[in-house]
Amino acid sequence: MKQIITFGEVLLRISPRGNKTFMQSNNVEFYFGGTELNVSISIANFGGSVKHISAVSEDFIGDTAISYIRKFGVSTSSIVRSKRPLGVYFLEVGAVMRPSKISYNRSHSSFSQIIPSMVDWDKALRKGIWMHWTGITPALSQGAYDTLKEGLKLAREKGLTVSADPTYRSGLWTYGQDAKTALIELLHYSTVFIGGINEINEVLGTNYSYSNEDFIKASQQLMETFPSIEKVFDKIRTALNASWHKIRARMWNGREFRETEDLDITHIVDRIGTGDAFAAGLIHGLQHYDDYKAMLFASAACALKHTYEGDVNHSNVDDVVKIIEGNISGRFIR
Amino acid sequence: MKQIITFGEVLLRISPRGNKTFMQSNNVEFYFGGTELNVSISIANFGGSVKHISAVSEDFIGDTAISYIRKFGVSTSSIVRSKRPLGVYFLEVGAVMRPSKISYNRSHSSFSQIIPSMVDWDKALRKGIWMHWTGITPALSQGAYDTLKEGLKLAREKGLTVSADPTYRSGLWTYGQDAKTALIELLHYSTVFIGGINEINEVLGTNYSYSNEDFIKASQQLMETFPSIEKVFDKIRTALNASWHKIRARMWNGREFRETEDLDITHIVDRIGTGDAFAAGLIHGLQHYDDYKAMLFASAACALKHTYEGDVNHSNVDDVVKIIEGNISGRFIR
Amino acid sequence: MKQIITFGEVLLRISPRGNKTFMQSNNVEFYFGGTELNVSISIANFGGSVKHISAVSEDFIGDTAISYIRKFGVSTSSIVRSKRPLGVYFLEVGAVMRPSKISYNRSHSSFSQIIPSMVDWDKALRKGIWMHWTGITPALSQGAYDTLKEGLKLAREKGLTVSADPTYRSGLWTYGQDAKTALIELLHYSTVFIGGINEINEVLGTNYSYSNEDFIKASQQLMETFPSIEKVFDKIRTALNASWHKIRARMWNGREFRETEDLDITHIVDRIGTGDAFAAGLIHGLQHYDDYKAMLFASAACALKHTYEGDVNHSNVDDVVKIIEGNISGRFIR
Amino acid sequence: MKQIITFGEVLLRISPRGNKTFMQSNNVEFYFGGTELNVSISIANFGGSVKHISAVSEDFIGDTAISYIRKFGVSTSSIVRSKRPLGVYFLEVGAVMRPSKISYNRSHSSFSQIIPSMVDWDKALRKGIWMHWTGITPALSQGAYDTLKEGLKLAREKGLTVSADPTYRSGLWTYGQDAKTALIELLHYSTVFIGGINEINEVLGTNYSYSNEDFIKASQQLMETFPSIEKVFDKIRTALNASWHKIRARMWNGREFRETEDLDITHIVDRIGTGDAFAAGLIHGLQHYDDYKAMLFASAACALKHTYEGDVNHSNVDDVVKIIEGNISGRFIR
Amino acid sequence: MKQIITFGEVLLRISPRGNKTFMQSNNVEFYFGGTELNVSISIANFGGSVKHISAVSEDFIGDTAISYIRKFGVSTSSIVRSKRPLGVYFLEVGAVMRPSKISYNRSHSSFSQIIPSMVDWDKALRKGIWMHWTGITPALSQGAYDTLKEGLKLAREKGLTVSADPTYRSGLWTYGQDAKTALIELLHYSTVFIGGINEINEVLGTNYSYSNEDFIKASQQLMETFPSIEKVFDKIRTALNASWHKIRARMWNGREFRETEDLDITHIVDRIGTGDAFAAGLIHGLQHYDDYKAMLFASAACALKHTYEGDVNHSNVDDVVKIIEGNISGRFIR
Amino acid sequence: MKQIITFGEVLLRISPRGNKTFMQSNNVEFYFGGTELNVSISIANFGGSVKHISAVSEDFIGDTAISYIRKFGVSTSSIVRSKRPLGVYFLEVGAVMRPSKISYNRSHSSFSQIIPSMVDWDKALRKGIWMHWTGITPALSQGAYDTLKEGLKLAREKGLTVSADPTYRSGLWTYGQDAKTALIELLHYSTVFIGGINEINEVLGTNYSYSNEDFIKASQQLMETFPSIEKVFDKIRTALNASWHKIRARMWNGREFRETEDLDITHIVDRIGTGDAFAAGLIHGLQHYDDYKAMLFASAACALKHTYEGDVNHSNVDDVVKIIEGNISGRFIR
Repeated sequence: MKQIITFGEVLLRISPRGNKTFMQSNNVEFYFGGTELNVSISIANFGGSVKHISAVSEDFIGDTAISYIRKFGVSTSSIVRSKRPLGVYFLEVGAVMRPSKISYNRSHSSFSQIIPSMVDWDKALRKGIWMHWTGITPALSQGAYDTLKEGLKLAREKGLTVSADPTYRSGLWTYGQDAKTALIELLHYSTVFIGGINEINEVLGTNYSYSNEDFIKASQQLMETFPSIEKVFDKIRTALNASWHKIRARMWNGREFRETEDLDITHIVDRIGTGDAFAAGLIHGLQHYDDYKAMLFASAACALKHTYEGDVNHSNVDDVVKIIEGNISGRFIR
Repeated sequence: MKQIITFGEVLLRISPRGNKTFMQSNNVEFYFGGTELNVSISIANFGGSVKHISAVSEDFIGDTAISYIRKFGVSTSSIVRSKRPLGVYFLEVGAVMRPSKISYNRSHSSFSQIIPSMVDWDKALRKGIWMHWTGITPALSQGAYDTLKEGLKLAREKGLTVSADPTYRSGLWTYGQDAKTALIELLHYSTVFIGGINEINEVLGTNYSYSNEDFIKASQQLMETFPSIEKVFDKIRTALNASWHKIRARMWNGREFRETEDLDITHIVDRIGTGDAFAAGLIHGLQHYDDYKAMLFASAACALKHTYEGDVNHSNVDDVVKIIEGNISGRFIR
Repeated sequence: MKQIITFGEVLLRISPRGNKTFMQSNNVEFYFGGTELNVSISIANFGGSVKHISAVSEDFIGDTAISYIRKFGVSTSSIVRSKRPLGVYFLEVGAVMRPSKISYNRSHSSFSQIIPSMVDWDKALRKGIWMHWTGITPALSQGAYDTLKEGLKLAREKGLTVSADPTYRSGLWTYGQDAKTALIELLHYSTVFIGGINEINEVLGTNYSYSNEDFIKASQQLMETFPSIEKVFDKIRTALNASWHKIRARMWNGREFRETEDLDITHIVDRIGTGDAFAAGLIHGLQHYDDYKAMLFASAACALKHTYEGDVNHSNVDDVVKIIEGNISGRFIR
Repeated sequence: MKQIITFGEVLLRISPRGNKTFMQSNNVEFYFGGTELNVSISIANFGGSVKHISAVSEDFIGDTAISYIRKFGVSTSSIVRSKRPLGVYFLEVGAVMRPSKISYNRSHSSFSQIIPSMVDWDKALRKGIWMHWTGITPALSQGAYDTLKEGLKLAREKGLTVSADPTYRSGLWTYGQDAKTALIELLHYSTVFIGGINEINEVLGTNYSYSNEDFIKASQQLMETFPSIEKVFDKIRTALNASWHKIRARMWNGREFRETEDLDITHIVDRIGTGDAFAAGLIHGLQHYDDYKAMLFASAACALKHTYEGDVNHSNVDDVVKIIEGNISGRFIR
Repeated sequence: MKQIITFGEVLLRISPRGNKTFMQSNNVEFYFGGTELNVSISIANFGGSVKHISAVSEDFIGDTAISYIRKFGVSTSSIVRSKRPLGVYFLEVGAVMRPSKISYNRSHSSFSQIIPSMVDWDKALRKGIWMHWTGITPALSQGAYDTLKEGLKLAREKGLTVSADPTYRSGLWTYGQDAKTALIELLHYSTVFIGGINEINEVLGTNYSYSNEDFIKASQQLMETFPSIEKVFDKIRTALNASWHKIRARMWNGREFRETEDLDITHIVDRIGTGDAFAAGLIHGLQHYDDYKAMLFASAACALKHTYEGDVNHSNVDDVVKIIEGNISGRFIR
Repeated sequence: MKQIITFGEVLLRISPRGNKTFMQSNNVEFYFGGTELNVSISIANFGGSVKHISAVSEDFIGDTAISYIRKFGVSTSSIVRSKRPLGVYFLEVGAVMRPSKISYNRSHSSFSQIIPSMVDWDKALRKGIWMHWTGITPALSQGAYDTLKEGLKLAREKGLTVSADPTYRSGLWTYGQDAKTALIELLHYSTVFIGGINEINEVLGTNYSYSNEDFIKASQQLMETFPSIEKVFDKIRTALNASWHKIRARMWNGREFRETEDLDITHIVDRIGTGDAFAAGLIHGLQHYDDYKAMLFASAACALKHTYEGDVNHSNVDDVVKIIEGNISGRFIR
């Protein structure tokens, strides 16, 4: 089976249970996450063959990270080990009008120290059919940026589909590289753009509004600027508060504009990784369905992720398809 | 005090905390359940004198099951012990559009091996005034069906009220007996029918719609077909999603049609056993109130069960009466 | 920095996790609370200098109480130790239409045995600028009432602002003192009144309605009866059920009537201490803002408290100000 | 089946897990205990018919206490409910040279307020064959002492065997009654004495040493002073540290002195209630075996209790008999 | 890398924490185990390439089992899925003289229903160099026995080393097959015998004592009776009680007798799977060291397993080698 | 009250419960530690006035660290906040022959970035009477070394007693500074030396044996080389395995050699921070007792720490004095 390749940091996520703060309880839980890993695991849960490439610490925390990835059936054969500790993030989960708070310890992590010579991209991509990247990786360090660029370049040479989720997070990008320049460089290797008006305005320097008309225009201009890009998918979140969101999506593939209806998520369990669930749903969907159904699949996957703790979407294909078919009343499965 | 008798399987219920999946945590919680036991315990919580009849394993799991039943004050004196293990069910609790998932390990359980000679019905029913059965028991095994039939026959001879909750669950009934034939046989011993259009259509082979008009007609035809049946109570659930339901009820007793208003359950904690809470509320109610108030009591009990973890309704009579009286704002009780 | 002084019982709060009952789990959690302590800690979380005065047991439970208070930076230097055990309350948290239930073990607690000679008020108030009291303390015992009265008297002599939250709880007041007489006595030492129509009608013996017009009239009459009172702040709670409330506030300061808009708390985590969070927000607010903004700050603080487990509001000033500025969508803070 | 009757306080026991202190974790566990209740439950676990008489609070904590007692099959039909809260004790479990620490909140508990008119002793003892009392109950309050005395008097009139465990705990006895006078009074109703040199010296005012010779002499003098006493059983504990004890026992029945060998408890799980397990083992043993074997049974039961968390001995007869037969290597039971 | 193949049931193990009983807590933990799987995972932890063959349920419990196996890097590619539920065992962990208790629910499990046609042995053994079996598998069902026999036959044809741990457990073997006949049949395919005097006497019908002389004689007779067997390894456990054991081992390989010194395990955490850890250590050791050092490695691995919760030995090669080198004082590794 | 000053890193310690590994459970617990902080908190538990100086992150993890320190009554007024994350260490607690394993994430922590200008030593030492340092701090970074040196210099100028625990940990010291040179420099400011033969040989370049004779000679030579040093205290640990240690101590103060007897710690709960408990005991002891009794106090404190989870010794003075007086049988304290 042809492989989907993801590349990015593996983070240890530590958080108190429920809505507690660290000051309230010294009982905490951990998972592993990281935006690209989340995509990877989610696709594996859809039955896809996936390999995640990263650098993790060579201590028992790194061992645990690898075992965590392996338990979902994601290949860890191209993960390298490092003397540096694994990146960590601490999370306090908010509720209603209280926002969730995150604190990172990642700037000198094992992944941030990666450099191109540490990854044998030729071997890593051998069975590849698709590669996915996000804007987090090039934001972490020069080495991460360079390593990603080398991988994407080879991926395109080998004819892989390349999906980009060029999220721009201003708190990162501290190592000196200009974000816009770097993202533009990487988008030239990409064929599927996962992002909305903010991301497009960021890379094009434009000022489009959130209207559907502007979305089409912006997408079209993006595709003209980056001829490799064939499709643009945008996920729209409406937040009543931290516990209640609505999700819908829209797309432009150069010929057709489509949008989905809102999925109403009335009791959010954990919203981390919901964007990654959308990306994973899209990557799975585009391999099995047409563009519109792929977007429906992605939206449903994204909505379902809100009902799982942790960074990862635990849904399988049946779970997602049921949502697309309109079974949103949560009836028991025996 | 005259006793209410229930007969059915005791199941060990195992589930991760909150909305976690088994893959996410090896910390799980257990309760004991089983549809008839749930009814039994709930009536005991209303102050009723109750005896539950079953077969449980003779290991420490069976001991724990008995101690669990005993702690609610339900009599375990007619429970027999078996060499076979206790039935188990595993549960992953869903949220919003994610359904809860259940997996059973019950087909060779201690209860499934029960045969009529194992229960001394004459002794068991000595103090009985009411006997309750559901469609789960005859679906489990020939022995369970035969044992139940023997008990119901004697119960009617002794003049007990017999309530039937003839839920038809297609995943069961694997041992060869035709479901419809069996349920019809057992309904001939019953005086109170707890079920709706689906259950009536199932046993009558009719095709009534969900309208109130059809409910009355269907109930009337049911009562004509089964002359022992005097009253029909139907609970109606409207599910927005797995976390948000509305509950109401309607009844036909041959003379009078009544229905309740919706109770809005905006934040479901656990919906398992809510039907059993309705049945228990009804059995309690019919012993203390008129038919309509009994139905109000049952609906309120059912609604309250959604706010407790586990299979069991922990409400007492005061708790339920407060809801009937309109105190649904959840004000503190000090 | 000038100190805010609170005086009142410290209670050990014990409750099962989530919505469980004590019958369901022998795993419970504890926090410490008490209405005046909650105010104290909440102000400390806003950066205020606070001292809490109380009597706690001299065993390891008392030690733990003191360490709990100390961890928020509240001064415990005027807390006295007692041979009597710490007061305890047990809590079962309800949901939807199920009310939370509380059971107290406080009538012979360390605090209930306090008498005026145990507190050196002169020393305790040395750095004070504000003193806060509630109607719980005088309701507990003659000694508690006398001690409070002595403190308030000295506070007024020293020119401290005195805020009163004269909640009347009928289950208390068992030691013989007439509640109304006592509250009237203590209100004569107070300058800020935190309470609504019920509290005003209670002390004035009037019968005002909940309308804004009546609120103004009632407040005005209150301020005429108690010339020391300069401002009245009223928090209004609308409860859909135990899991979903709305909060707003209104005020009259002799010149100006203002009210806030409803804050919609769709998924309550814990409502205990939300009134205390309002009082704390007000005390902080009145020291830093005008009356209206202080009320906005108090309302937002109150709303945020609903999202934290335990008695205490863990919000800091930034958290609250964000709500006032309209950021109620719970967006991540990284 | 003839009943064994116990009478005494039911306490809520709250403790952090493992060897933690309250300052280290706000996650705690609770059980119910109380020396006479522990005896009661332990006998029920041996298959005995037992009734425990007490007064518990009428709140949900009292409900939980009753359900806890009921789950072991102990009759709660003579327990009365009280407006006062249930007694509580807090426990920090030590290890090695660190002692366990206990703090009580029981001086105004529901049981301490009991008076003779609250217990219908005639009804309570109707099926009784044995009654057991300890020195804790008369130490709690005048009412508790009077109620116990009334019960013992009637028990002797009805010919029940009465076992006494007259432990003298100096921290109690604060209500005015002289301990020695009270214990002497109660011993005149007793037939089996469970206690050693300390307890005998306490009531006789003697100064016997711990030697076997003195034990025989002391027992003999005791039996002469209290002609109703027929047998004396003494449990001897050698403590290397809080985690490692040895247990043996000796007896004098007027004719025969016997002693057991040490049972070596190398890894103590919880030592609370181990004396109660000895008493329960003795009561069970004396009903089924000769004096010596009863003492062996009691010693083995006592040793086994050290391996269970909580106040209660969860061993059944088979478990204890295996130890008597020398199976102390802890081989698996499948 | 050449693969080690194991074949056997995967069991869900459920147990309360620490030394609690099921009656004491409804918080339990689960792991997966099964004697051959334990061997498999332990070898994977030593860096070996391992494949475990089994039949697991096709529900979410089976999914979780597979993910659990996968997380250790053991290949699950030859595991088949079944409509039957996964086998379960319940465990209460004893201490000191209290034995651990186990209750099984496995007689109609997914694995018990396996038949030869469900396993493609030719494919499964393709990369195999070693196959391991135990006496549990043929004891479960005719199908399990037949399937194992077919696998062993092919394994020998392909020249794999075959290790046998022919533990005889009398509680199993209920399906009709004679245990001795079956074990003899399977031993004819085996080259390494892991077992002691009991196992040898069982299959030879002899009556050797536990002395070293008899061990050599018995082993020699075994090797003459089963010419394929080249080596015999015996692990000897001395149990002071359930919490304190000593472990040593001895061997005979037809030329040389060797024995190890006792390893003193003073504080056992969990003894389940310690025999499997010995077998796994031996299989790893015999591939990398001479017979004697392999036995030392196996003994050390066995000792280390006693310090881990669950069925699995989490030690890696470094951990074990340190013990062999005499580092048994448990000094920190930073 | 005169203050004791400590200076050093605050670390977040994260570990699974009991003896679990990170691979076994995603439920973990955290405490805060760090060798100098442990000393500080332990002295506060003895009633001392203590200030800990450090740099912690300015996120919610840093807030939690400060609240943790504050809860023991240690002054945090000189702690500075940093943009860098708090240092973390992960711990897996071993048992018997399995060593505990630690993995650090501290090399770019908030404390490692400290520089002299960040600490106002003059203000920080204003009330100081004693300052304590360890060999960990100068090993972390040039800035930490420089800051410590500046503090020690001023401490000596102000006449504070300075205790040194110059532990040499080879895994640290990666920033370029020569360990021996640095430690020698810092010892010139020290008056009490806490360490044994290894530490003395390290700084003197000698080769003394562990004998008492050599200890005296080595201490004498140390005191001649560093004339400020007046006393040498050595703690000796004998480890049977990771769960069972013995502790004793010896001292030389230029005139007198004394040693203590072994304290036998048969069931270790957590050995981290036991050296710090010794140092804290010594610092407390030397302020209240003569040298020998101070050493006895330190040994007993050290032994007691082995019975508490976490880095901190929770004993108070009474607890320790009981051990010195020979009460090591762990008898209950009620």
